[in-house]
Amino acid sequence: MTSWVRFLSKDGSVGFGLLEDDCVVEYRGNMFGDPEQTGGRRHLDDVTLLSPCVPTKVVALWNNFHALAEKLGKAAPVHPLFLIKPPMSVIGPGAPIRRPRAYRGKIAYEGELGIVIGQRCSNVAVDEADRYIFGYTCINDVTAVELLDEDPNFAQWCRAKGFDTFSCIGPAIRCDFDWRAARVATRLDDTERQNYPLDDMIFSPAQQVSLLSQDMTLMPGDVIACGTSIGVGSIKDGATVTVSIDGIGSLSNTLAATGEQ
Amino acid sequence: MTSWVRFLSKDGSVGFGLLEDDCVVEYRGNMFGDPEQTGGRRHLDDVTLLSPCVPTKVVALWNNFHALAEKLGKAAPVHPLFLIKPPMSVIGPGAPIRRPRAYRGKIAYEGELGIVIGQRCSNVAVDEADRYIFGYTCINDVTAVELLDEDPNFAQWCRAKGFDTFSCIGPAIRCDFDWRAARVATRLDDTERQNYPLDDMIFSPAQQVSLLSQDMTLMPGDVIACGTSIGVGSIKDGATVTVSIDGIGSLSNTLAATGEQ
Repeated sequence: MTSWVRFLSKDGSVGFGLLEDDCVVEYRGNMFGDPEQTGGRRHLDDVTLLSPCVPTKVVALWNNFHALAEKLGKAAPVHPLFLIKPPMSVIGPGAPIRRPRAYRGKIAYEGELGIVIGQRCSNVAVDEADRYIFGYTCINDVTAVELLDEDPNFAQWCRAKGFDTFSCIGPAIRCDFDWRAARVATRLDDTERQNYPLDDMIFSPAQQVSLLSQDMTLMPGDVIACGTSIGVGSIKDGATVTVSIDGIGSLSNTLAATGEQ
Repeated sequence: MTSWVRFLSKDGSVGFGLLEDDCVVEYRGNMFGDPEQTGGRRHLDDVTLLSPCVPTKVVALWNNFHALAEKLGKAAPVHPLFLIKPPMSVIGPGAPIRRPRAYRGKIAYEGELGIVIGQRCSNVAVDEADRYIFGYTCINDVTAVELLDEDPNFAQWCRAKGFDTFSCIGPAIRCDFDWRAARVATRLDDTERQNYPLDDMIFSPAQQVSLLSQDMTLMPGDVIACGTSIGVGSIKDGATVTVSIDGIGSLSNTLAATGEQ
């Protein structure tokens, strides 16, 4: 099992390494290149995990699960439907989701699988796409849902999903991961709200990388949020969302209570 | 007149500096910080201009001019309507626009004013927004128009406008610029297709920076494409689009002929 994490040490430095039991075996260099061990080892209690990568963009898919498409009465798309979330939207495990200052409406969670790109690529063939996938992570793709249709002429996907802290990513990037056998489970505080199988995806990870790489060059550390399935709901201020995928881990983030803005 | 450019030298190095007649007075350090003169000076004939900044995101507005809103029969929005274009979509003056490999449809130009952010900012008040604006540039916001409504359930703004080479930016960033008195003129080969006044904008640059900074943190070098007005049209393969704004300069890019892919 190979799971990469990034972390903040108590001395303020940022590092990365491989998970081993309750520790991080430290590496230096380029996580996506040929990193080397530093010889250091940190206990997880002594570090704060960060988002495991620093994407130049998060490509977030809409309508990529048969079960949700059926529930919404939407046909399966012929090409991945996506929006782009900016780098500043990314936070790591445990970091608070912040309510936008001028927005008092509903904020929704979406538990998702995330694909992490390992090598710069464009126009990749489907049968070669796996080599550009570094690994997989958990995502909570957060949405200020009442902004989506605020304007009758223009669906505001980038605005509703692009706020700072609205792309929760982590806790780790699992490299040797069989998504076909895995499920995404999302808990809102103590209640499970989503539990869906990844093999219900319309576009597989390899198809996503291939087709999206025809739309834009994908860069190391870029993240594709594979879309969500049934069970999406809203988060009350102060509530915690935990997205869990067996073999990757659990990603928990709390929507900061308004007083904590 | 203070106009910053970035350039590629014949030796392969990337530099930046201030335009002075036919030369670039070279600087080093951070363009948005406190750069210092190197003492070097390059003739424009000896360098290739690049996009004058390297944005972490391009925020592209839709429906921001009264004349175009009226022509399309759309109400003015209450908040800037935008999509996000990824960093890899950016090219500089003279660089070719590339037709996506699998797309044979119409490709449209949109001549626009670009705002270049100078300082990291969020939740900026309108009357303080100007201090976060480093300067202004020309933009050709390119669109693969036939993809926009390809799916009946999801307008594909990010896909149609996010392809590599679809954000042409330059030639320079003009710092001391009065947008109120300026016009955007767009030529397709030798024919003028757009010529509209910037004072017809629905959201002024200061309002854009203020309102968008409530949606996301803006970073130094980020670019806001202010939206276009009437006269948008399609570019034939091999045709050249030139966006000119008096006081900033002219930005020319050719849609590469198919054989040159």
